[in-house]
Amino acid sequence: MTERAGRGRRRARAPRADRGPADRFEPLPPLDNPLPPVEVLSADGIDKIKRAAFTLLHDAGIEFRSNEVLDILERNGAKVDRDSQIARMDRDTVEHYVALAPERIPFHARNRDRDTFIGGNRINFNTVGSPPNISDIDRGRRPGSYDALCDLVKLNHALGVAHLVGGALVEPMDLPVSSRHLQNAYALLRYSDRPIMVRSVSRFRAEDAIEMVAIARGVSRDQMLTEPSVLTNFNVNSPRRADEELLEGLMCFGESGQPVAITPFTLAGAMSPVSIAGALVQQTAEALGTIAFSQMANAGAPVLLGGFTSNVDMKSGAPAFGTPEYVKAVLAGGQISRHFKLPYRSSNVNASNAVDAQSTYESAMSLWAVIMGYANVVHHGLGWLEGGLTASLEKTVMDAEMIREWAETLKPVDVSDEELAVDAIMGVEPGGHFFGEAHTLERFEDAFYQPMVSDWRNYETWQEDGSRTATERANTVWKHLLESYEPPDMEPAIDEALQDYVARRSRELERAAS
Amino acid sequence: MTERAGRGRRRARAPRADRGPADRFEPLPPLDNPLPPVEVLSADGIDKIKRAAFTLLHDAGIEFRSNEVLDILERNGAKVDRDSQIARMDRDTVEHYVALAPERIPFHARNRDRDTFIGGNRINFNTVGSPPNISDIDRGRRPGSYDALCDLVKLNHALGVAHLVGGALVEPMDLPVSSRHLQNAYALLRYSDRPIMVRSVSRFRAEDAIEMVAIARGVSRDQMLTEPSVLTNFNVNSPRRADEELLEGLMCFGESGQPVAITPFTLAGAMSPVSIAGALVQQTAEALGTIAFSQMANAGAPVLLGGFTSNVDMKSGAPAFGTPEYVKAVLAGGQISRHFKLPYRSSNVNASNAVDAQSTYESAMSLWAVIMGYANVVHHGLGWLEGGLTASLEKTVMDAEMIREWAETLKPVDVSDEELAVDAIMGVEPGGHFFGEAHTLERFEDAFYQPMVSDWRNYETWQEDGSRTATERANTVWKHLLESYEPPDMEPAIDEALQDYVARRSRELERAAS
Repeated sequence: MTERAGRGRRRARAPRADRGPADRFEPLPPLDNPLPPVEVLSADGIDKIKRAAFTLLHDAGIEFRSNEVLDILERNGAKVDRDSQIARMDRDTVEHYVALAPERIPFHARNRDRDTFIGGNRINFNTVGSPPNISDIDRGRRPGSYDALCDLVKLNHALGVAHLVGGALVEPMDLPVSSRHLQNAYALLRYSDRPIMVRSVSRFRAEDAIEMVAIARGVSRDQMLTEPSVLTNFNVNSPRRADEELLEGLMCFGESGQPVAITPFTLAGAMSPVSIAGALVQQTAEALGTIAFSQMANAGAPVLLGGFTSNVDMKSGAPAFGTPEYVKAVLAGGQISRHFKLPYRSSNVNASNAVDAQSTYESAMSLWAVIMGYANVVHHGLGWLEGGLTASLEKTVMDAEMIREWAETLKPVDVSDEELAVDAIMGVEPGGHFFGEAHTLERFEDAFYQPMVSDWRNYETWQEDGSRTATERANTVWKHLLESYEPPDMEPAIDEALQDYVARRSRELERAAS
Repeated sequence: MTERAGRGRRRARAPRADRGPADRFEPLPPLDNPLPPVEVLSADGIDKIKRAAFTLLHDAGIEFRSNEVLDILERNGAKVDRDSQIARMDRDTVEHYVALAPERIPFHARNRDRDTFIGGNRINFNTVGSPPNISDIDRGRRPGSYDALCDLVKLNHALGVAHLVGGALVEPMDLPVSSRHLQNAYALLRYSDRPIMVRSVSRFRAEDAIEMVAIARGVSRDQMLTEPSVLTNFNVNSPRRADEELLEGLMCFGESGQPVAITPFTLAGAMSPVSIAGALVQQTAEALGTIAFSQMANAGAPVLLGGFTSNVDMKSGAPAFGTPEYVKAVLAGGQISRHFKLPYRSSNVNASNAVDAQSTYESAMSLWAVIMGYANVVHHGLGWLEGGLTASLEKTVMDAEMIREWAETLKPVDVSDEELAVDAIMGVEPGGHFFGEAHTLERFEDAFYQPMVSDWRNYETWQEDGSRTATERANTVWKHLLESYEPPDMEPAIDEALQDYVARRSRELERAAS
C-alpha cells in the first residue's frame, strides 16, 4: 500500500460524464467566512502602528492638493499650511471623524438578487481594474480596447464568481479619454448585473457614473443616497499626497452616499519605507487622515480602509506581489481596519508575466491572505497579471477556479448522521470499496466540488488528449463561455436611457475637449 | 494613480544584481507555526466523529491479517474473531492504549544540527515518497531508477527545504526488489544529512533500515531506542484492513523505538464513504484502532496519526488531491489528532499531470491546510505530481519556493522603532520616494524574501530573455543545483561500514530470492 493514486486499479462504477467545460455556472453565492480571521499582529503591535500613524499625522501631515479640501480640513480642526498644502491633525480629531464612518455598507445591484454588503466577515470579489493591456495565449499581449473590456465583463458574468464588476477591466485605449468612462460604465451595467465599481478621477466622471447607476437601477438620486450601489477607489499618491482630481471624486461620492475605498499606494522600499511595519504605519496614517477628511466633508459617508502594501524587489526596483511580505501586510491591514471598525479592501495580485506556476502561487498566497484576513472587497480578484499591467483571459478563469475552491472549502463540514455514514462503512467488507453502495449512489453526483479547469484523468489519457496544461484548458473555457454568453435581462427603456445618456454626455465632453 | 506596477516609472537606485539562480541556499530552519491552527470542526463535530469511530471499532472492528498481531490484541482486551481475523475493541480499551503514545517525538539526524521533533506547532516537510516514475521537462516521464533517486536526494539536500528525506523519492526500478531498500537507505543517508523516512514492508526491511541509521549516526541500537531517527509510514489498506507485512514493520519499529505514521488510505467515494465526515470517521477509527494495537505491542511506542483523506472524481473514479474536500479533511484531521494528543502527519498533494497552474493551486491549497492545520510531518512535501505516480524535478523546486515563502510569511512582523520607521517617513517629502534614503540603503539587501523561481522583471525584459515560464526557470534551478551539488560530510569509516552493510545484505537477500 503505497500512496499512489491507483488510477485504473479501482474504477468508479458511476457513469462517466463528458469532460468538456460547462455551458453555464451557477453564480457563486455571497461568501461569508465562518472561520475566525488570521491575525499576525499582537494587540501591542497594533497599538505601536497606530501610535506611529497618529504621530505622523500630527507632526508631518498629508498634502491635500485642493484648496476646497484644505478649507474643510481647517474648519474641522486640522492645522493647515497653505504654502505646502499640508494638513496636520491631532489624534482626537482623527479618531472622532474616523468613528463617524459606518462599519458596514449595504451594496446594491441592478439585479436585487445580487445585492450584497461590505463589512463583517463577507468577502466580495471584484474583477481586475485598470490594466492598459489585455492578453490571451492565442493573441498574446496587446493594448486594451472597448471590445476587450466588454469580453472581460461578459466572461466574468458567465463565470458568476465576481460579486462586483469594475472599474475598467481593461483600459479601452480606442476610446477618447474624455468620455471612455461612460462607455465603461455602460458595459459594466449592461453586460453584468452585479454592483459596480468605477474610477472617479474628477467630479464630472464621478457624477456621470452615479447618474448611470441610478438609471440602470431605475431609482432616484435621493434613493441612491441611502442605497450605495457604486464603489470607487481613492489612491493616495504615496507618500502623503492626495491629488486634486481624486479628491473631487471622493467628495462627489461622499455627497451621493456612495462608498470609496481609501487606498494608499505604499510599495515598501519605493513609496514607503523598506519594512512592512513602516509601510503599515504609512498606510494607516494616509488612510485614516483621508478618511477623517471624508467624514468632515460628509459625516457618515461610506468608506473602506484600503490596503495595497507590497514590497519592491530591492535588486531591480520592480514591484513584487503575492509575496510573504504582501501576505503579512494584508493580514495586518485587516486587523487595523477592524480595530477602527472600518470595512477593508485588499487585492488578489501577482507579478508574473505569464499564466504559469508563478502567477498561481502568488495569487494563491494573496487569496488565502485576503480571505483569512477578511478583506470585504477584493479588488483585482480575477484576471490580474504582470503586477496589474495586463488583464488576462486565462488568468480570469484560473482565478475563478481558485475562488470557487475557496468558497467550497469554507462550507462547514456536515456532521449529520447521514454524512457520518457509520452504517455505510459497516456495510463494506474489509479491503472492499464503496463505489456500488447505496450511500454512494444516492449522493455521488453532488458530493464533491466540480472543477472548471482541473483535469484529474490519468497521465496516458491526458497525453493522448494533447497534454494540455491548465492554462490551455482555461483558454478553452473562456472561449466557450464567450461563445455561449447571454446578457442578463434589462428593460429596453432602461437600456435606451443609458445609451442616450452615454451619447449625450459623450458629445458634450468630446466637444469640450476639442 | 491607478494600481499598476509602474515598472520603469520609478526605478530603484539600488544596485542590480545578476538574476541567475543562487549557488547554494541556506537550509530552511525548523518551521514552528506561531499562529493558532485553523479549525473547521466544532467541539460537537469532533465529538460526533469520535463517537462514530468508536462505534465502528466496537461493532465492526478492523481486520488484522496476522495471527501474531491477533494474539496481542486478544491478550489486551480486544474481541478477536479468528476466522475473519477481525478484532473489535471497546472505547475504554482504545482510549487507554492511545493515551500511552507520546505527544511529542524527538527526531534525530546524523548531522545533529538537523535534529528536530515531531509534535506541537512544528511543521516538518518531507520529500515525495514512492512514485514509480520520474519526470522533468527535458526528458519527460520515465520509470524511476537509482540514479534518479540519487538526483532527487541531492537536489533536496541542495535546496535545503526538506526537514526529512525519504522514503524512496522515486522507485529505483532498475534494482532488485528484494534489496533495493538497502540502496535507497544508503542514498538517503549519504547524500543528505537530515532525519530519514523509509518504507518498512516486512520485518527484514524495517530491521535493515534501522540498522543502517544506527551505523550512519554512529550510535548503538540501545541508544536508538531513546533517540528516534527513522520514520516509517503504515498505510491501513482501507476499508478496515491491516496487512501482515506492514504489521511486521510496525512492530519492528515499535520495538526499536522508531516512529510510525499510521495512515488510513481513505479516498472518499472509493475506499471510504462519499462524504468528508464519513471518511474522517473511518480514518479516525482505522488510525486509532491500529495505534491502540501499536501500544499493546510496545507501550509508549512513538506514532503519528496520519491523514490521507481526499476524494475521488465521481465522474471518472480518478482520485483528486488538493481539493476543497482535501483541505477540510486535513484541517479536521489535525483537530482530531490534537484531541487525542497525537502528532499528525499529512501531505502536500495534487493530481495534475504537468507542472502547471493546476499542480500549483492544488499544492497551494494543500500547503495552507497542512501548515495552518499543524501537520507535524508533511510527507510528499516536495516533488509529488500526478497523484503520486511521478516525482518531478521541476515540481520539487516549485514546492521549495512555496514552502520557503510560507516560512517567511510565518515570521512575526517586527514592530521595533527601527522598523516602524517614523523618522524615515517624515524624511521624505509628499509624492517623493524612499530609494535613496539612509533607512532604505541600510537594510534593502535583506529586507525582503528573495525568490528562487519568481521573475519580477518587466514584460519586455522577460520577453527578450525568452519568455520563460516559472516551470522552465525551475528547470534551470535544479540543473544548476545538481551541477554544483556537494555531499554533506561523512566519516569515511562510516561510509565504508554502510557500503559493507548494503553489499552483505544485498548478497544475502538476492541469494534468498533467487
